[in-house]
Formats: sequence, C-alpha cells, structure tokens
Amino acid sequence: MTERKEKMKLGVFLYQPGHHVAGWRHPESRADQALNFQLYAETVQLAERAKFDLAFLADTAGIWGTDIKDLSRGGKFVSQFEPLTLLSALSVVTDRIGLVATATTTYNEPFHIARKFASLDHLSGGRAGWNVVTSSNESEALNFSRDAHSAHADRYVRAREFVQVVKGLWNSWEEDAFLYDKEAGLYFDERKVHVLHHRGEHFSVRGPLNVARTPQGHPVIFEAGQSDAGKALAAETAEAVFTIQQSLAGAQGYYAELKSGAEAAGRSPRDLKVMPGVFPIVGRTAEEAEEKYAQLQDLVHPDVGMTLLSAMLGDVDLSGYKLDEPLPELPDTNMSKSRLALLVRTAREQNLTLRELYLTVACARGHWIVRGTAQHIADQLEERFVNHAADGFIVMPPHFPGGLIDFVEQVVPELQRRGLFRTEYQGRTLRDHLGLPRPVVCVG
Amino acid sequence: MTERKEKMKLGVFLYQPGHHVAGWRHPESRADQALNFQLYAETVQLAERAKFDLAFLADTAGIWGTDIKDLSRGGKFVSQFEPLTLLSALSVVTDRIGLVATATTTYNEPFHIARKFASLDHLSGGRAGWNVVTSSNESEALNFSRDAHSAHADRYVRAREFVQVVKGLWNSWEEDAFLYDKEAGLYFDERKVHVLHHRGEHFSVRGPLNVARTPQGHPVIFEAGQSDAGKALAAETAEAVFTIQQSLAGAQGYYAELKSGAEAAGRSPRDLKVMPGVFPIVGRTAEEAEEKYAQLQDLVHPDVGMTLLSAMLGDVDLSGYKLDEPLPELPDTNMSKSRLALLVRTAREQNLTLRELYLTVACARGHWIVRGTAQHIADQLEERFVNHAADGFIVMPPHFPGGLIDFVEQVVPELQRRGLFRTEYQGRTLRDHLGLPRPVVCVG
Repeated sequence: MTERKEKMKLGVFLYQPGHHVAGWRHPESRADQALNFQLYAETVQLAERAKFDLAFLADTAGIWGTDIKDLSRGGKFVSQFEPLTLLSALSVVTDRIGLVATATTTYNEPFHIARKFASLDHLSGGRAGWNVVTSSNESEALNFSRDAHSAHADRYVRAREFVQVVKGLWNSWEEDAFLYDKEAGLYFDERKVHVLHHRGEHFSVRGPLNVARTPQGHPVIFEAGQSDAGKALAAETAEAVFTIQQSLAGAQGYYAELKSGAEAAGRSPRDLKVMPGVFPIVGRTAEEAEEKYAQLQDLVHPDVGMTLLSAMLGDVDLSGYKLDEPLPELPDTNMSKSRLALLVRTAREQNLTLRELYLTVACARGHWIVRGTAQHIADQLEERFVNHAADGFIVMPPHFPGGLIDFVEQVVPELQRRGLFRTEYQGRTLRDHLGLPRPVVCVG
Repeated sequence: MTERKEKMKLGVFLYQPGHHVAGWRHPESRADQALNFQLYAETVQLAERAKFDLAFLADTAGIWGTDIKDLSRGGKFVSQFEPLTLLSALSVVTDRIGLVATATTTYNEPFHIARKFASLDHLSGGRAGWNVVTSSNESEALNFSRDAHSAHADRYVRAREFVQVVKGLWNSWEEDAFLYDKEAGLYFDERKVHVLHHRGEHFSVRGPLNVARTPQGHPVIFEAGQSDAGKALAAETAEAVFTIQQSLAGAQGYYAELKSGAEAAGRSPRDLKVMPGVFPIVGRTAEEAEEKYAQLQDLVHPDVGMTLLSAMLGDVDLSGYKLDEPLPELPDTNMSKSRLALLVRTAREQNLTLRELYLTVACARGHWIVRGTAQHIADQLEERFVNHAADGFIVMPPHFPGGLIDFVEQVVPELQRRGLFRTEYQGRTLRDHLGLPRPVVCVG
C-alpha cells in the first residue's frame, strides 16, 4: 500500500440516540441522551481523549413528515438540543476537538449564520465548523411560512449565494483591527473594517459582521453534497466533505471528482478533505460483531422501517405493499436526488424486498457498514485511505455511548499502531487538525 | 415603609465593556472582555455568588449606523459574542443564576427562536429567559435583505404574533410525553404531542417544536416596552419587564400601569415583575463616588458623545450644531418613540446644552443613575422597592468587572442586612428565583 504523509482524519457523528434506527433500544444505549447534556459531554470527551479531529452534528428545523404515530416508535430528530447552543456548551468542557454543526441555507439568514458560527469559533478557541446543507426535509418549509419546499435546483442557487455572503461577512475585520487602546480612546482601527455591501439574487447584506475575525480566520466549511449541484458547490467552496460511499470504487470515483473539481476551481486539492461516513460494528471476534449486528436489526419495528423507507424515497406511500415483495415502481419526487438514486439502485441490483431494503436503510441510512474485529475494520479504513478514496472518516456509532466506546478502545489503537492516526494533537484548532490553510482576508 | 413578602429581584446587565460609554477606557476595565469567554465566566460567577436572580444580555444584529470612523472610538455592539451561543457556554460554568438573552422579533423566525431558547432551558436546567424586543437599530434591516426598517406600529403587530407562535411551539409536548420505553419500542406517547397549525398575518408555522417541554415549562418571557404598544404587549404576555425609569413618581406610574394592564388582561399582577434599570456608582464615601463619576465622564470623547446622541435621537445630523448650545428643534423620526420622548423632555426641562445632554446619555443611556455610598444606594433601591415602583432592578455597572465588584461587595450585603435580598437561592430555576408560576400546557 502507498504511504500518505498526512494522518487519517476522524470525526464522530453525534446522532442521538444512535445511528442505528433501533440503537436507542439497545441495552447499552442511553435512550434519553438527546436532551442530557452530561451524557453529551462525556461522549465528546471520550472522542477527544481518542484524539478525534472533530464531533459532527446533523440538523433539521422540524420533525420529519406528518404522521406523529409513526414517529413515536423512532426518536430521530423528534426532540434534541439545537446544534449551535449544544456545541457552545460543549466548547467549555473540551479543549482540542473540533465542533461542527449543520445549518441549512434554505430556511436561515446568512447574517445570523455567519455570526453564530463566528461566535462559536471565538468561544472554542478556533474549533468551529459549519456544515452547509440545503434542506431535504420538506416539512421544514411548513415551519417557516412557506406552503411548499423549494425545488432542488433553486435551493442550490440560494446555497451558493448564501455561502458567498457568509464568507464575505467573516472577512469584515482584519486580524489586528481591534486595538482596545484606552489611552488614545481607539477601540478599533477604522481602516481595518471591510463593509460587505452584498447585493445578489437572494440576499442584500450590508455588513460588517459584529464579531471580530475568528481564531481560525473563519470556521471550517463542511458540505455534504451528493448531487451534481452539491458536488459542484463543494468543489468550489467546501474545505471538508461528508459523503455517503458504499464501495471502494465508488468512493475513489467521488474522491477523484471532488479533488479535480477543486483544482478546476483554482484550489489545491489538499485544501478539500473528503470524509465518507462509516458505520462500524466492532466485535472481539467476527462472530461477536455479527451477533451485535443481528441484535440491532432484530430491534427494528416494521412500522419504523417502512416509515423510514417511505421518507427516504420522498414520502412515497408504501402502505399498500407487502413487506416481503420487491420494491415497486416509484413516482418522480423532489427529495434529495442523490440519496434516492443510490437507494433505488441498491434495491434493484440486489433484488431486495421492502423488508430487506428497510433493514439496509435502518442500519446505517445508506452509509458504508463495516463489521468485524478491530483489525478487520482497520484494514477496511486503511484500504480506502491509502487508495485515494478518503482523507478520513466520519464515524457513525450504532448507539451511544457503547458503539463509540468499542471504536475508541479497539479500532483507534489499531489505527495508531499502524501509524495511520495521531496519538497526540499537534495543534489547537480544527484547521490545525485537518491540515487546512488559514484563510486570508480577501477584500475585493 | 411597607413590608413586602417577596424579596427584591436583582439582575446584572452584561454589556461589554461596560454601561458607561467610556467604561472600557477605565483603568480597571478589561477592554477586550467582549470576546473573552473566561472574563465573562468570572463576571457571571461573581453575580451568582452574590445570589443574583439573573444575568441579562442586550442584542443587535449589526453595528449601529454607517459611520465606521465614529464607531471606532466606541466599541458598543461592534464585536461581541452572539447572546445564545454565549449563554449556552455560560450555562456550563454556572449552576443557579438565570440566563436571559435579547432576540429581536423583527428579523428572526419564531421557530428558530422557540427552539434555541428551549434548548438553552434544557442545557441550563431551567434558567433561560427570552427578552422579546422589536429592532430599534435601523441598520439591522440592511443585513436582512430589506431596504428599509419596518415602521414602529408594524413591528409590534409582528412581535405580538411572533410571541404567540413561540409560546404555541413551547406547548408542543406535554411534560410526560417522552417515554424512552426500550421494551415496547415507544419513544414518545403520540397522544401527548400538540401540532400547532398556526396561520396568521405574518407567520404560518405548523410545528410541533423538535424540543421536549423544558424544565421551566417554558423559558421566562422578558420584555422591554416603553411605548404604548410595548406596554400593551408586555401587560398581555411578559413575565418580567426591563424598563427605563428616572424618577420615583415616573417609576410608580409605570409600575401601576403595567400591573393593572396585566390584571385587565386576566392575569395576576404578581406574575409580571417590573425591573427598572439602575446604573450604580458606589463609593466608600459620597466624595469617592463623585470622583469616580467625574473620572468616567472625563473619559468621554466629544465625537463619541455626539454620535451616541445623534443615534439616540434617530440619526439626526447634529454636525452643524455647537457643543455648548441648547438642543435644536428635531424632525419626526421612526426610532423608538418612547426613548426619544424621554430624552427630549429631559433636555428641555433642564435646559441642557448638547454637551450636557450627551454626558447624561453617555453615562447610563437614559437609565436611573444612583451614586454614593452602599447605604445611600440601598436607601434608594429600598424606597422604590417598598413604594411599588419596582419588584427589583437590572443593575448596569459602569465598567466590568470593577463596577460589579463594587456593587456585589458593598451594596448587596447592605440589602441583605436589611432583609430585602436573599442570602441563599431557594430554588433551582429562574422561575423559582423570580417567584413566577410554572406555565401549564394550554391546548386549544
């Protein structure tokens, strides 16, 4: 295998109460963790002791769908801390680990987003990241005085301008703008402020931001694009990408496309880190891992599986179909194109029944599942890391804290033994950990 | 003097780097505190050791005005933490003190606000408060794709509906909705969710909120209304009011008006606490207090004074007027009516020059100034407290941390000695401290 100069990057995706849809029912799961700050703190401290680059939070501004009864057996996104308030609190009980939150460009204002992430970067001493998304939850529209969700293409046009405005606001103040000179009575140097005066299709934002330039220059920009529009935006503007990749070949293709896209946009490919999700089930033996997997799958209630599948297929009504029949033909929908295409292709290729498909989805929501011993999992991660399929991984434990403890105690030491992962933090900021350059103030 | 059953309430208004416009230039001020979390933490911990009910944060989503040069001598609202991220972080380093943040109804969405404050209430174990305002900073409009600021009356129509929606969202889940029942596979009880389905003039919000009912039932609602529209809204919906009151008679009138307004709205007057601002300058002797006052006033740069005055008068151009001439006639403006009226009345009554007026304003921005020994200040506070002019006070130290240390070390023990202020917290939540009832879930 090829040597790589940089170490593997690792993030932990905090998703309460676990990435497996029935993870919360696992005997070792803390089912009430979604609103228990102490448990969150312990989880992130555990990842920090293991020298993870970052903790990652998904988000949606509302529940999924409309059927409360169906949701009552799930728990995902039904009730949890809001990400920016949670990460601000977590910044106080951690010292080095990066703190990345998702916030949608579809139902937010760029000034609020620029400001809150800048504030988090100051609070955390340079550990903030913003995961830029467009909303794929159609129900969010109904919480923001819209009758219908924006079309996919429109959301990306807005997202592109949104990111441009946020980055512009983060450039409001030069590094040394604030003097705090009591004697002269000068709080800041007026020549070091840059008013934005942005006027675009979706936004008019004067600025400047009312937060000084942040410890990292600006927070790290994550994106999660799978569609063509998403990949194009990521190649231009993302500093790290979280992606769904099943096969080595697929992951290599995505990696090459993103890196060459960055290059075509005039950037160094090294300045865009590709981090696919990985859903690990760790056993002391291969058999133990299989038993753990079966135990989780047995906990999936059929109502939950069918609801999840229906939602991921764009709210298709599946109530007329039998569990053990193949996937029916589907109408065209407005949900995230990329995820839909992946799902349908998987089902067709493997000739899955609805039950088999929902069990696939329930397990890791389309993400790459690795199960086995620490050695086997390390082999899998190493293979993708050295063969240009990933710069690192976003680890998605099936349940918390047990699933993370297994990974930290067994897989991380194996990665460290192989020289693939750090044994100590070298820097203090998320940019330091990820090997990303510090942005300079670009004034037009 | 009359005995009162309840103790006096005390809040500390965190306003970096101090409520006096030149407070940051004071030798004892930490001029860089606005983005120094450790200093904020120490300040709030100091207030908590003194058994304060709450810490209070103002807010504005943008700098004031357009002249960067003028602002460079000030520092107010130019660069600071965003309040909700700051309070979330402070919740981790405190245990009892209430945490109240201002957020405008003019340039926010009710779903985001309901969610973030609910999240803070969970993070803090029931210590969150939301200070509801309409934006009085016209520049904010330009950061949110508006060409002009909304008119005063329109802002209050929107604010009323905004508060209604937020309270509705806070009622989404009953206390015991979440079961976390692993065995039965039931995360919550579907009968205990209440979808809002709000459709109004300004907002359509389906709900439910994606945060469980909070430790306080819902966060405490603060308002800061001075105008007729503001007072009417407060009488209906506020649980505590922060107000500007100079004279005892004026404060008594305001207090009576708010309490009878609450009664007219079908509420108990006890469920609406009136807390005027007070700007204390504490000396070991009266002479020392006067010297401290003079020291601060001497630090006010004329450019800062004139800019502040111009902004408070609604961006009136004062550049043609001389500092030592009386206040000129003013055009009608769209700024906060109440504050304007107060200022102009003060100037005319006392026949002040522009310099004298800006020194008044610079000192406490129109708030009640008390200066003298701890005994004198305690006398002043007691007089208003027992004579139905206040249920407590929002303390506005001229600079941090020195101004707060003086108040905590000298005035608080004097209030405690008189039995006016608590010597120990009796409860754990902000509602407990303020003696406010826990709201019940009202389902239509």
